Amino acid sequence: MAAKLYDLELSGNCYKVRLLCALIGVPLEVIPVDFLAGAHKQPPLSDLNPFCEIPVFQDGDLVLRDSQAILIYIARKWGGESWLPTDPAGLAQVSQWLMVAENEIARGPNDARLHDKFGYKLDVAHARAKSARILALMERQLARDAWLALGRPTVADIACMPYVALSHEGGVALEHYPAVAAWVDRVKALPGFIGMPEI
Amino acid sequence: MAAKLYDLELSGNCYKVRLLCALIGVPLEVIPVDFLAGAHKQPPLSDLNPFCEIPVFQDGDLVLRDSQAILIYIARKWGGESWLPTDPAGLAQVSQWLMVAENEIARGPNDARLHDKFGYKLDVAHARAKSARILALMERQLARDAWLALGRPTVADIACMPYVALSHEGGVALEHYPAVAAWVDRVKALPGFIGMPEI
Repeated sequence: MAAKLYDLELSGNCYKVRLLCALIGVPLEVIPVDFLAGAHKQPPLSDLNPFCEIPVFQDGDLVLRDSQAILIYIARKWGGESWLPTDPAGLAQVSQWLMVAENEIARGPNDARLHDKFGYKLDVAHARAKSARILALMERQLARDAWLALGRPTVADIACMPYVALSHEGGVALEHYPAVAAWVDRVKALPGFIGMPEI
Repeated sequence: MAAKLYDLELSGNCYKVRLLCALIGVPLEVIPVDFLAGAHKQPPLSDLNPFCEIPVFQDGDLVLRDSQAILIYIARKWGGESWLPTDPAGLAQVSQWLMVAENEIARGPNDARLHDKFGYKLDVAHARAKSARILALMERQLARDAWLALGRPTVADIACMPYVALSHEGGVALEHYPAVAAWVDRVKALPGFIGMPEI
């Protein structure tokens, strides 16, 4: 039985789960969630994930929340050592960028997009400043290496790419970050790549 | 040669690295950083970590940033499968809570403390609302299980405990969250536990 993803097409966090499954070749049952109606805040979804957020991922009896944790699971279960190695240095170096997706990118381009595209009430000037900071740091990394970690595509790239590639929807232009833009194109060229609206 | 931690005593993120090393019994060379003078924003520290933050961790040639990624490294290198297992489900279930430390706790009790204790300019009402949300979710988990993940102490607990235990420094009282308060006491009772100011 295929794993299930409770999904929203326009969510970059849901998209990164679909993307990794497509790249590895993992069958996935995608179940659209009526987000506007608040289905994620009501049973049965709120029982599966008390955080009342999507994505929610289900593989047999195991239910997982948080897109980065879901990527970790998929990579470990179906991706061998390639997308997420288990040696201490490799795992930690990839994890550093998973944490960037969870923190700096969430507070930056993701928050700015939530404000501009979906009308969330938050300090968008703060989110744009956070975006400029993390994009400059990513530019520095990607100007000297093709990928975020270990010199090859890993879940670090899959976790970080979506909201960076969507940053124009939060009023942040990637044209000032040519190495970041080239990296987005590199991810798009991976065998099995799938897109989402605006990517 | 012992691993090095570039450290600030009052940082909960630095403390969690010292704590895990103490619990596992990993020798650590602690190097205090003159944070008020901005030493973390200048060479040599800004070369080690372009994010200009602490903690920074160095083990031989390997340099790591981000406290959660550092915990992952220490647990994998010196902690066996106990503090951070590598099977897909175990790693993902612990990682879910590492992401809570990186996101919900950082945006909640950590931000509120940065405002109240260190004078950071940020939306403290927002940080207090985020604190109430994540503490209620942790209360739900910890009312039915002694630990955050896998029914035993893992790096999830070490990552999440410090800023929760310090939440009173950000104007958030733990007395409304008895299961969370009992869990903090449980972490404090682990063999080898060390504290920090206010914990």
